[in-house]
Amino acid sequence: MKNHINNKLLVKDFTEDEIINILSCYQTDRKGLIKGIGDDCAVCETEGIDYHVVYTSDATIEDIHFKDGEIPERIGNKAIGRVLSDLAAMGAEPNWFIINLSLPKNYKIADLKSIYSRIKIVLDEYDSSIIGGDLSKSKKLAFNIFGVGKIKKNKPVFRSNVNANEMIWCTGQLGHSLSGRHLDFKPRIQEGKWLSEYGHAKSMIDITDGLIKDLDRLLKNKYGAILYEDTLKKMSSLNNVLYSGEDYELLFTSSTDPSMLLHSWKNLFSCELTCIGYTTDRLNIYLKNDKKINLVEIRGFQHF
Amino acid sequence: MKNHINNKLLVKDFTEDEIINILSCYQTDRKGLIKGIGDDCAVCETEGIDYHVVYTSDATIEDIHFKDGEIPERIGNKAIGRVLSDLAAMGAEPNWFIINLSLPKNYKIADLKSIYSRIKIVLDEYDSSIIGGDLSKSKKLAFNIFGVGKIKKNKPVFRSNVNANEMIWCTGQLGHSLSGRHLDFKPRIQEGKWLSEYGHAKSMIDITDGLIKDLDRLLKNKYGAILYEDTLKKMSSLNNVLYSGEDYELLFTSSTDPSMLLHSWKNLFSCELTCIGYTTDRLNIYLKNDKKINLVEIRGFQHF
Repeated sequence: MKNHINNKLLVKDFTEDEIINILSCYQTDRKGLIKGIGDDCAVCETEGIDYHVVYTSDATIEDIHFKDGEIPERIGNKAIGRVLSDLAAMGAEPNWFIINLSLPKNYKIADLKSIYSRIKIVLDEYDSSIIGGDLSKSKKLAFNIFGVGKIKKNKPVFRSNVNANEMIWCTGQLGHSLSGRHLDFKPRIQEGKWLSEYGHAKSMIDITDGLIKDLDRLLKNKYGAILYEDTLKKMSSLNNVLYSGEDYELLFTSSTDPSMLLHSWKNLFSCELTCIGYTTDRLNIYLKNDKKINLVEIRGFQHF
Repeated sequence: MKNHINNKLLVKDFTEDEIINILSCYQTDRKGLIKGIGDDCAVCETEGIDYHVVYTSDATIEDIHFKDGEIPERIGNKAIGRVLSDLAAMGAEPNWFIINLSLPKNYKIADLKSIYSRIKIVLDEYDSSIIGGDLSKSKKLAFNIFGVGKIKKNKPVFRSNVNANEMIWCTGQLGHSLSGRHLDFKPRIQEGKWLSEYGHAKSMIDITDGLIKDLDRLLKNKYGAILYEDTLKKMSSLNNVLYSGEDYELLFTSSTDPSMLLHSWKNLFSCELTCIGYTTDRLNIYLKNDKKINLVEIRGFQHF
C-alpha cells in the first residue's frame, strides 16, 4: 500500500485490496466480533447460543457481472449465488437475505418477477428467505444482497488459518466461467458446511477473482504455494484456470490424508474435488510440471 | 395495485409501494421470521436468547440522496443515519453494519476516508461497528448499508400495530430537510428505544418520504387521521411539513396520557416531541383548524 495518503490520490491509484485495507481501519473491535473485514464473511458471537452468526454482502451489477438483456433467471441465480458462495467459503448455513435493488424505470416487471422467482427457488432449497430490502431508481439494474447465516462455534473456516505444508484443493472444474458458469453455478453450501464441520478445511475462500488472485489472498504474504500444472491443464486452458475468475468454486487448504478425503467426498457429493498443489513457507506461487518449475504472475480481476 | 401483471408492464407503470408489494411475494415464511418485508426492519427470533435480531438496509446514492461535491462528512452522516433511523423506528439498538460501496475511479481517497471517519464516529457513539462490505466500480458514488440490531422480545414497534383513537406524535421539527437536515440529522436511537421499552409507541415509522406519505403507510388503508393544522404550521411552511420528506424524525401513535408522556420526555431528551393529531376509524387524512376541516392529498417522495 502507498505509505503516504495525500489529498491528491484517487481511487484509481490503488488496487481493490489496498482500498479495502484503507477502509478496514474504520472497523472498531467490539465485544462479540470474532472476524470482521478481510474474510468471506464477518463472524459475530451471540451470548447464550451455541453458534455464531455470519454476515456477508455482494453486489451484482449490469455491465459488470451480467450483460444488458441477460436471461432474468440467470441474473437472479448469480445475484443470490454470489452471496451464498461467500457463506459456503465460511462453512456456514444460509438463513436470511435482504435485497437492495437499483431499478431502471423501463425494466419489465415480468423480468423482475423472473429474477425474484429464481432467487426464491434457490433460497427455498436452503430453508432460507428474503426478509427485506430497499428500492432505488437507477440507470443500470443492480443488486446489493446481504446474507445472514450461522455456523457452530469454533467451526468457521477463516482465510487466515492457512499454514505451510497443507494440501491445496478445489471443488469442481476451474476456468469455465466464460462459457456460462459465472451465471449458472450452484454455490457449494453443503460441501463447505461438511468441510468445516469435519475439520477438513484449514483455510478456505471461494474463487471469484481467479485462482491465482484468490490463492494469493489466502496466503497473504506469509506463505507460498506449488501448483500442479498438468492437473490444472486438464480442467481448461491454463490461462483460464489461473486467471479468468468467477468460478464460484471452493479453494481450501487441508491437512487431512488426501485419499481419505477423496474417498469420503465421493460418497457424499457429485461435484469433483481435486488436489491442485500444496502450501510452502516460502513466498510466491509456482507452477510445477515433470520438467520445470515456474514463477506465476499474481493477477486476476481488478475493479479499479 | 394493477390486478393483472402482463408482459408489457414496466417499472415506471407502478409506484414504489406497488413494486414492494409485488416483490414481497417472494418472501417465504420460515420459522424464526417474526416480521419481514413491509416494516422499517425485519425481525427474527433466535432460540435461546431473550432478544430478537433486527435487520435493515438503505441505499444512499449520489444525485438522489446527496449532490456531487457534497461535504464528505455529511454524506457519511446521511448514509449511516438513514440505516440507524430505521432501527430507531423499530425501537432497536444498533450492533453491526456492512457497507457495499459503489466507487467512481476518480473519487479522492481523502474524501472517502472522511466519509468513513464520520460513519465510524457515529457508530462508536452506539457501541456499534462496520464489520464488512463489498467494493464495486461505478459512475456515481453510492452506499448500500446493511444494519443489524437487537431488541428485547415483545418490544419491537411494528407499523401494523396502529389502531383508531391513538394520539399521533412526532419528534423534532418537521419540514426542515431542504435547509440541510436531510444531511445533518441525528437518528433518534435513544428516543426510539425508550418509546418501545416503556410501551409508549403502539406503532412507529421514521419519516423519509414525507409526513403524509409515511403516515399513510402506517394507517395502511385501515385507519384515518385528523391532523392539527396550526400545530404543524408552527414547524415550517405547511407544504414542507406535509410533503418535503427526509425529516428522519420518528412518527408514532400512542395511547399514553399525553401530559404524562410529555413530562417524562422532557426529563430525558432534548429534542422536541409534539402531538400532531389522532387516528380515526374512518379512512383518509384530514387537516383541522379552528374554522374548517380539509381532506389532505396523499403524496410524497416517489422513486418511479
